[in-house]
Amino acid sequence: MIGIDRYARLSDRLGYRFADVELLKQALTHRSAAKEHNERLEFLGDAVLGMVVAQALYKRFPSVPEGKLTRMRSTLVKGETLAELGREADVGELLKLGPGELKSGGHRRSSIIADAMEAILGAIYLEAGMDTTAEVILRLWQSRIERLDPNEHPKDAKTRLQEFLQSRKLPLPVYEVVDISGKDHDQTFVVHCHIESMAKPMQGTGTSRRKAEQQAARNALEKLDND
Amino acid sequence: MIGIDRYARLSDRLGYRFADVELLKQALTHRSAAKEHNERLEFLGDAVLGMVVAQALYKRFPSVPEGKLTRMRSTLVKGETLAELGREADVGELLKLGPGELKSGGHRRSSIIADAMEAILGAIYLEAGMDTTAEVILRLWQSRIERLDPNEHPKDAKTRLQEFLQSRKLPLPVYEVVDISGKDHDQTFVVHCHIESMAKPMQGTGTSRRKAEQQAARNALEKLDND
Repeated sequence: MIGIDRYARLSDRLGYRFADVELLKQALTHRSAAKEHNERLEFLGDAVLGMVVAQALYKRFPSVPEGKLTRMRSTLVKGETLAELGREADVGELLKLGPGELKSGGHRRSSIIADAMEAILGAIYLEAGMDTTAEVILRLWQSRIERLDPNEHPKDAKTRLQEFLQSRKLPLPVYEVVDISGKDHDQTFVVHCHIESMAKPMQGTGTSRRKAEQQAARNALEKLDND
Repeated sequence: MIGIDRYARLSDRLGYRFADVELLKQALTHRSAAKEHNERLEFLGDAVLGMVVAQALYKRFPSVPEGKLTRMRSTLVKGETLAELGREADVGELLKLGPGELKSGGHRRSSIIADAMEAILGAIYLEAGMDTTAEVILRLWQSRIERLDPNEHPKDAKTRLQEFLQSRKLPLPVYEVVDISGKDHDQTFVVHCHIESMAKPMQGTGTSRRKAEQQAARNALEKLDND
């Protein structure tokens, strides 16, 4: 047998077969591996994805206010979701990584897969245009969009951080009040959130201990999602 | 003379005339004025704008790395730029505002104009689709895109904050180190940036005083841009 297609599962998942395999290869190339890497494609893919998902949510939820649409969109396009979709499409196995990254596991690898997924969407956009890319995105995200419930109370940041760490079998965060300033009824709390995998604590500020902790947790989640 | 078109200048600037004037009116309606306001359209417009600008930058600067593209895009789609474009198109005079907002001046008004501009783009997208909206955006942004110089050193946050306040004839920010912790060679600085128009100081953290000040200035700029 000749011509076994190592991209078969990816094409299958995407519902799209690249005409230009070099372009696909570039989308799978991390900056540690070659000069022609996927970061610019990722920039493009991120924008197309954000747009297509925004439009889908706008249509599907005609009476949901903007704030909720924004939150739902964040959930759909965050690194974690992209990494899940990327894993389902074998992106992890197809990545081209530099020697330093080859050994990197866990969270770091997830974020590389997520970036490659965006780059793949950017590459489809370049090759086939907006309509085709929108079809691919809506197919990939369909079940996740259908599962969204705008009435579901959004989980607070501390809960989400705890779940994030638990799902990775990591120790739970430790919160510590490091500063309280201001007068009795106008106090400002500064809280550190210590996470074992992070070199430095994440900080939050707020008019109550609870608010400061939530902010520190939000900052931690953001950092974990971008790393 | 009948049928004087109060939207003439806007249509002219946009290079687009709405078929559905009710849709345009909604795009110009702040949430303080009516239940049918422009926030959902703004959500849509923001996504379309981000996408069109990303694509334009990707094409125009074929060898500029992703980080710079991202920065250039932020400059082009930030509230200040949107408000400028909105003012040039008379959006300020056409806004429908609630009683509380009618008196609001200056910075607050700018941010309402910026949001309405995004909502107008969202409305064009709904009425006329992607290609037409992209044409409108590229025409409106053309000179700003042409003026971009990827080799220009991006101004640091403290400089930008100073320029922002000076251009509004506001007093300059005052930076204050409120905490230094850690050992000699691994210190963490916490800095407050006091701005007269802000009820609370903005905070920044960093491994040096300079870094902490830059972060505080960045936080202040972000807050000023979103308010």
